[in-house]
Amino acid sequence: MSRPNDHIRAIVWREGALQLLDQRELPERTVYCRLTHVEAVARAITDMVVRGAPAIGITAAYGVVLAAQARFRQKPKGWKTPIQGDLALLRKARPTAVNLAWALHRMQGVIDTVDADPSERLLAEARAIHAEDVAANRRMGELGAALLNEPGAVLTHCNAGSLATGGYGTALGVIRSGFTAGTITGVYADETRPWLQGARLTAWELLQDDIPTTLLVEGAASYLMSHGRVGWVIVGADRIAANGDVANKIGTYNLAVSARHHGVRFMVVAPTSTIDMAIVDGSAIPIEQRSEAELLSLRGQRVAAVGAAAWNPSFDITPASLVDALVTEYGVVTNPNSAKIARIMAVAADNSRAANG
Amino acid sequence: MSRPNDHIRAIVWREGALQLLDQRELPERTVYCRLTHVEAVARAITDMVVRGAPAIGITAAYGVVLAAQARFRQKPKGWKTPIQGDLALLRKARPTAVNLAWALHRMQGVIDTVDADPSERLLAEARAIHAEDVAANRRMGELGAALLNEPGAVLTHCNAGSLATGGYGTALGVIRSGFTAGTITGVYADETRPWLQGARLTAWELLQDDIPTTLLVEGAASYLMSHGRVGWVIVGADRIAANGDVANKIGTYNLAVSARHHGVRFMVVAPTSTIDMAIVDGSAIPIEQRSEAELLSLRGQRVAAVGAAAWNPSFDITPASLVDALVTEYGVVTNPNSAKIARIMAVAADNSRAANG
Repeated sequence: MSRPNDHIRAIVWREGALQLLDQRELPERTVYCRLTHVEAVARAITDMVVRGAPAIGITAAYGVVLAAQARFRQKPKGWKTPIQGDLALLRKARPTAVNLAWALHRMQGVIDTVDADPSERLLAEARAIHAEDVAANRRMGELGAALLNEPGAVLTHCNAGSLATGGYGTALGVIRSGFTAGTITGVYADETRPWLQGARLTAWELLQDDIPTTLLVEGAASYLMSHGRVGWVIVGADRIAANGDVANKIGTYNLAVSARHHGVRFMVVAPTSTIDMAIVDGSAIPIEQRSEAELLSLRGQRVAAVGAAAWNPSFDITPASLVDALVTEYGVVTNPNSAKIARIMAVAADNSRAANG
Repeated sequence: MSRPNDHIRAIVWREGALQLLDQRELPERTVYCRLTHVEAVARAITDMVVRGAPAIGITAAYGVVLAAQARFRQKPKGWKTPIQGDLALLRKARPTAVNLAWALHRMQGVIDTVDADPSERLLAEARAIHAEDVAANRRMGELGAALLNEPGAVLTHCNAGSLATGGYGTALGVIRSGFTAGTITGVYADETRPWLQGARLTAWELLQDDIPTTLLVEGAASYLMSHGRVGWVIVGADRIAANGDVANKIGTYNLAVSARHHGVRFMVVAPTSTIDMAIVDGSAIPIEQRSEAELLSLRGQRVAAVGAAAWNPSFDITPASLVDALVTEYGVVTNPNSAKIARIMAVAADNSRAANG
């Protein structure tokens, strides 16, 4: 079996500009937006040109490079003050994924230590964040795939693939590795309303690797599980609290409840940059509420009766107690809880110190 | 509080023809299709001009009237043989809702006893089926609403309203009655992919009665329940097995699993014509698989990558063990099982004999 290709790149730094694959246009059109200003980067995150927690973090890091170039040009001696506004702008572009704040924190660390023209050092840091993410995904792919003990189909939700990360993917990284290893024979993908990431993005990604993909409406997931058609649900995460509670695309919690009911196992795949030790449990994670129009209209045309309201949280919280395995780049945490999360984060901190020291 | 209006009629017999409100066009356009031939009636059921188990049964009954008129014109002495083909055509128009076969069985009973021109007798029977359905819905509305002990919001799925029945609705009948009584303060409605019955039909119906309606994606239902926002899930049914297992719109089983997990109560509202005593349990109920295109395209435009498959069962099975209350026109069955279902069906049979004798 051939190694899954790895050429999908949602985020590319080229010729001094940030190129984002416009995910709103997939799969019909493969168009890159060329961004040269931090404001445009923030808007691209808010408007979901790019989405997925790790991808948002990487994008924001490159956004800081663009900001620093402009601020340094304007004020070579005093650029470090005005760039704080740019970081704040990026930070509030979307509220739930913590990878955004995490990446900005790393970029701030470089800003704090650089003296002269910061462009090169910041670009190197952004590239490092990007490359580390791909490496983490490959590692998580192996670790997650090793948990799958017998060949079968799995169910995934939203898109936690190359498009949502620096490349290879978190949940889809495990699926790519499992398919290569022969333990994953096919994928059921929730279409994932309202944005249809499953239909538009996940099917597109997996089919490029010749991984058989079958879409279903979210409402059908429990019925699918009751037929014994999947052994695992495999998803990504936008933020994980210190106790292991997981914020991810709306509909994830529903799958976790149903998986437990049916004896299907539930795997969350996320780099440690997704874990927010400042958040004690899921109830404190900010959940983005998106526009009612995402439900009331379809392709710009109204579908719901005038007067109808819509409740449109973009994420939900899955309690740690429903997670069978949390796969990070530093190892697998089974049945996560505060103590286990603290241990894996200590390993991550040790590795980070070793890399920098 | 005013009595909810009751003027929505999906099925109207007028000037010797069957008029069906074209539910594919709602809520944008209110258009009636005028049908004068049984073939057109069968096609309208298959193509979902009309949908909802009781509505399909009533439509088929009027279809038999049209068939009998034509067959009697062609062959006044021998019309009873060729009309069997028309009944077979109607019977296979959609497979899951048993009300279709039930209504045809009643019409066959009239065919068996009539001698001369059957039009008047058959039209009277179709009108009786229609009127009895509305009366049953009003009765179920009262019985179901009486189960709601404290004011709050409820969650419904698909459309089990006036549009899905002869009028007033099953699940939405309970909601209408509960809203009038003040025990239902508002409704959360699943948008109900892929056909969006919730967004297109349920919101439209409820807002005509000034019942506040908030749409959500199916994936958000568990998260809604975890917030304690709803005390009951209230749905209709397409077929109920002798043991109380319920076939209803895909996504219903998912809600039942989640309701049980969250201590939310689960109510099924269906007339006894929906109960199929020939089916021992849900595993024997035929589940319609609809076209993959319903998921792969949106408003006629492809959304999923070429090569993606779709699994599109139109219904699922909720085991009786997850049903807290089954509301029929002859009373409420709590925690349904075979013995309790047999008792309520015996009451239905007694009433039917009394009405005919």
